[in-house]
Amino acid sequence: MAEEKKKLVESWSFLDTVESNFRPLVVIELAKGTKEETIEWLTKRIVDKKANGGAQLLIKPLVTKNGVENIYLVGASHLRLLLGAEAVGLVKECSDNSMRTFTYSSRKTFKHFADDNHNFLTMAECQYIIKHELENLRAKNEKMIPGYPQAKLYPGKSIVRRLLTSGILVQIFPLHDREELKKLSHSWYGRVKVGYQPLDDIRCYFGETIALYFGFLEYFTFALMPMAVIGIPYYVFAWEDYDKYVMFATFNLLWSTVILEVWKRICAILTYRWGTLLMKRQFEEPRPGFHGVLGINPVTGREEPVYSSIKRQLRIYLVSLPFVCLCLYFSLYVMMIYFDLEQWALDYHKENESNFSSLMLYVPSIIYAVVIEIMNRIYRYAAEFLTSWENHRLESSYQNHLILKVLVFNFLNCFASLFYIAFVLFDMKLLRQSLATLLITSQILNQFAESLLPYWLQKRYNRRMKKRMCSKKTDMDLSLAEQVNMEKEMGTYLGTFDDYLELFLQFGYVSLFSCVYPLAAVFAVLNNITEIYSDALKMCRVYKRPFAEPTANIGVWQLAFETMSVISVVTNCILIGMSPQVDALFPDSKMDLVLTVALVEHLLLAIKFIMAFVIPDKPRDIQMKLAKLEFESLEALKQQVTGCSSKTHRHPPETSLETHAALLENGHLCSFCSTGSLIA
Amino acid sequence: MAEEKKKLVESWSFLDTVESNFRPLVVIELAKGTKEETIEWLTKRIVDKKANGGAQLLIKPLVTKNGVENIYLVGASHLRLLLGAEAVGLVKECSDNSMRTFTYSSRKTFKHFADDNHNFLTMAECQYIIKHELENLRAKNEKMIPGYPQAKLYPGKSIVRRLLTSGILVQIFPLHDREELKKLSHSWYGRVKVGYQPLDDIRCYFGETIALYFGFLEYFTFALMPMAVIGIPYYVFAWEDYDKYVMFATFNLLWSTVILEVWKRICAILTYRWGTLLMKRQFEEPRPGFHGVLGINPVTGREEPVYSSIKRQLRIYLVSLPFVCLCLYFSLYVMMIYFDLEQWALDYHKENESNFSSLMLYVPSIIYAVVIEIMNRIYRYAAEFLTSWENHRLESSYQNHLILKVLVFNFLNCFASLFYIAFVLFDMKLLRQSLATLLITSQILNQFAESLLPYWLQKRYNRRMKKRMCSKKTDMDLSLAEQVNMEKEMGTYLGTFDDYLELFLQFGYVSLFSCVYPLAAVFAVLNNITEIYSDALKMCRVYKRPFAEPTANIGVWQLAFETMSVISVVTNCILIGMSPQVDALFPDSKMDLVLTVALVEHLLLAIKFIMAFVIPDKPRDIQMKLAKLEFESLEALKQQVTGCSSKTHRHPPETSLETHAALLENGHLCSFCSTGSLIA
Repeated sequence: MAEEKKKLVESWSFLDTVESNFRPLVVIELAKGTKEETIEWLTKRIVDKKANGGAQLLIKPLVTKNGVENIYLVGASHLRLLLGAEAVGLVKECSDNSMRTFTYSSRKTFKHFADDNHNFLTMAECQYIIKHELENLRAKNEKMIPGYPQAKLYPGKSIVRRLLTSGILVQIFPLHDREELKKLSHSWYGRVKVGYQPLDDIRCYFGETIALYFGFLEYFTFALMPMAVIGIPYYVFAWEDYDKYVMFATFNLLWSTVILEVWKRICAILTYRWGTLLMKRQFEEPRPGFHGVLGINPVTGREEPVYSSIKRQLRIYLVSLPFVCLCLYFSLYVMMIYFDLEQWALDYHKENESNFSSLMLYVPSIIYAVVIEIMNRIYRYAAEFLTSWENHRLESSYQNHLILKVLVFNFLNCFASLFYIAFVLFDMKLLRQSLATLLITSQILNQFAESLLPYWLQKRYNRRMKKRMCSKKTDMDLSLAEQVNMEKEMGTYLGTFDDYLELFLQFGYVSLFSCVYPLAAVFAVLNNITEIYSDALKMCRVYKRPFAEPTANIGVWQLAFETMSVISVVTNCILIGMSPQVDALFPDSKMDLVLTVALVEHLLLAIKFIMAFVIPDKPRDIQMKLAKLEFESLEALKQQVTGCSSKTHRHPPETSLETHAALLENGHLCSFCSTGSLIA
Repeated sequence: MAEEKKKLVESWSFLDTVESNFRPLVVIELAKGTKEETIEWLTKRIVDKKANGGAQLLIKPLVTKNGVENIYLVGASHLRLLLGAEAVGLVKECSDNSMRTFTYSSRKTFKHFADDNHNFLTMAECQYIIKHELENLRAKNEKMIPGYPQAKLYPGKSIVRRLLTSGILVQIFPLHDREELKKLSHSWYGRVKVGYQPLDDIRCYFGETIALYFGFLEYFTFALMPMAVIGIPYYVFAWEDYDKYVMFATFNLLWSTVILEVWKRICAILTYRWGTLLMKRQFEEPRPGFHGVLGINPVTGREEPVYSSIKRQLRIYLVSLPFVCLCLYFSLYVMMIYFDLEQWALDYHKENESNFSSLMLYVPSIIYAVVIEIMNRIYRYAAEFLTSWENHRLESSYQNHLILKVLVFNFLNCFASLFYIAFVLFDMKLLRQSLATLLITSQILNQFAESLLPYWLQKRYNRRMKKRMCSKKTDMDLSLAEQVNMEKEMGTYLGTFDDYLELFLQFGYVSLFSCVYPLAAVFAVLNNITEIYSDALKMCRVYKRPFAEPTANIGVWQLAFETMSVISVVTNCILIGMSPQVDALFPDSKMDLVLTVALVEHLLLAIKFIMAFVIPDKPRDIQMKLAKLEFESLEALKQQVTGCSSKTHRHPPETSLETHAALLENGHLCSFCSTGSLIA
């Protein structure tokens, strides 16, 4: 067997003559015991020419001391990567500082481009291109994966996706660049400093989605600072005057609208600079997990699995919806237990007034906070399972359904008790205490579970690995084989979902009851500062490098944050209306009080909507740049249109309307169009 | 002078040999006494070849009995129109029933296309194309319009727009097609019938904007019918039970959301069928009235007038805004006078109770309704003047500022008195009476002022004209010269703005206080049915034919109607909360009443937003068709991308990545890209 593999390795070695410096970019790990014929077929398809339906990439088995271990390194020639960049529609900066879609033929107009400059594309971009090419490696007329008759294929099916779903392919991941990573981590979290994160470097290394998350995290932290600064004197001087609270709440509400609107502008600036604002949306392929009977896709006309939309609707409404409702009910049930506990602690404190008993007052809240976190995590798995069982065709549709399920539950789970305390028990003291405990406990738990625990586990594992390898080298000196072996055991970063969710819930704690507990913003700011560091650590040290994903905005989270800020207008108005100070202002008529509060609430909501409408989503200079590009593309289109383009034949561009017109003038039909012959 | 003109006519006559059946489509009327050299220059530019910067259209002076009268008829050859259709990006139906952008080279794939079928493009489309070509006739190196040194030109300036702004060109309008018009008017309003309007025929004759207005009017009328039907028994049986009112109001509020959402879907169906849903937005040129000093447009890089944005902002905030506020104040002042009148009528009725005095009760409302209408119209002119003085660069920005100004004023002017009666005076009886009087009076006034009066004036004028021409022919037998002379004196239809505004205010009367006066919907339905007929009459008989304008939706009006329906949730909830029946339900605590009303209101608003979010804006089959087209264009783009396109040279399409790959494999660079030479 090793004999045969050696032969294979030799047969690929001709590639090295073309590209002597093979640079490994992506690692493919196949299952142990994968059949020879499968490996041979797969590698052949990967190196095969585009014309033969291959990906035309370079591949090499990883040779370690233990021999070949079904781990393969994928790379590509520089030219191949440039053509791939054109295929995925990368947008890069031109020499005249404008952003343009990269095309191979216009490569000379791009900044920093030189045929021998292999750093024109960042490593993350190269890896993204290779991932795209691998995923677009499609079956031709194979009916199954060679050696695995149960793994069916049909023309056009992505081979890599089928290999993944049938378990032959364990994982594909991009390699870390030890040197770059060291530089990045030094400038990012290596030293304690006051200043911005190196967002552009993060983007170069991890891609736009992750850089945008860190950008949002940083922006959000800065945006919370005014709230925190204003909130501190309320706590220090124990201000309880109604007018001060109203001012604080009003400021908060308008401020939260402003920061969400301004974020859109900053996001546009960032993604314009990164080129993703201009990237064309790619046609969405079915997600890997999607299954169904073979049929004709009415949109593409291609054969692919189809799954009846009615069946999916039935699953959603008859199974998922009841399950979510049940979970919500259970969450409320747990909440009632918490209130029983709270009552018990209060009774205990009354019976034996001691330091211990007053500490005991906080215990129910802490326990409840822990339970909430656990329930959130369990529910998350259930929601993922259910949503994947709903069998959505598109990743975007899957994500939307998952996010909706998770958001509704997490919102209720985290905030139901606070709503109950505020608007049913009317106990502001308990609300403040409960809010503080929930916020702080959840922050500590999250920091621990998300970064520190995995980091510690990873460290321990690495130490054991190194001991096993009997080497005392530092990370930098590791051989490629050791690096790959270490990285393949690292955890997989599952995307920014959990990170955004955490920020979303934090925003809820800060804004929903901000006028009761102004200090919440302070804790949020403190948490976010450490969060930046622990998330950075997590990205750089704990997890495998994730594939870069181009993105132009934070997607559905923008909507989620905006919805939260609308809800917080309502809650804050009610809270202020309920405060005894405001109550005292309307001694005669509670009616007037309620009407005033309702009026103010409607006014604030109206102002919010008008502000959201009036503040442009993109800064003026970005708008201008976009308009300029649009104008250029319209002009180019016009050129093309007058050039009379068709699929069967194409005039040379100089055959524009002028030529048509010249022919037309003499009473002839355009000879290009009517005869279809090309005149040189 | 007549000599010279004759020569000109003769020199154009060669065109008739190319296109023997010159079909006049568009009329150009020049000012009396326009200089010869100007006319000569203009006609030359219009007939000149595209290559020389002309429009390559056909033009003929209109010869009447009185000789040549500075009126010119513009037409175009069939081929020229087809190329023009490609230039404006018309979308037509293909033989396989899909909608595609028309290109001359793919013309054979379109339904009903034949080289000798001159009805492939409708007359309205031909006229739109000619208008587009005329407007895009641009100055080359002329510094001024020949003969008029004060009418400056600069390279790229639209000649026709400069001629219009300097008064040399009186008007451009498309000719009616007497035969088609007769057919259309017969099927549209000629006979009393139950059924839909011939929307497709209207679209063919008047274009998409106008057809969409009539589509909306018809849809809106049908949508109001359930409200009207449910409202009748409330009036007949004088139901005053609170639960029935709550039911009616709730139904109304949800219904109004549903109808606005469903309209988007119907609009998508209509505009998909008409091809405008797929039409690419054209790059917006500065509006004709825009002026400024010559500068460089940063977007296009062309020389054109620029006007400082700060100056415009100053004009808006220092002049327009105070003016609008003043008008609003004046409107409120008039309202207070109305209430004085109302009080006076009431006192008078109390003093001498008679039939006359009870009739007198309605007089103040009627007078007020008339005054409101007059104020609306005067304000409209002022708003137009101000907005045009603000000197907006783009027509869309001008329109938005105008609509905002007009909507705010009209809303306050029409509804302030009703709000005052409802929420300050708490007089439901007066509210009902006032609402009914305002609604009915404004409807009668509108119908009269908008259609019947102009129709009558037009009729009288026509009769006089015919008498002067001493002919007893019917409309059909008129010679072309007589037709043109008659049409050029007809009024100009100023767009759908006023018609939508009328519907918008009607929607306000119906929905804002629907639970007080359920009969409003009945009057609205009755009004709209006659409105369809009178508007149809207006379009066909009163006004000049307007140029067709492609459009994909009703634009800002959708937002205006949705805002109105949100406001109506608030007003109706308050009205129901104030009704004595609901009051009686909460005998002990007014607080509970107010809280309940506020809760219900928030729930309704939440349901509205969720419904608007959940109901897809486009029906599934349209979504599928759009996805299919998008997929095709992405595939085509991919083909093009792999075809390595550049501006300086273009590979034949077969030079795809396969060829690249083949070359690449042997260690060569793609010869197309590196050498730029074309291999046949």
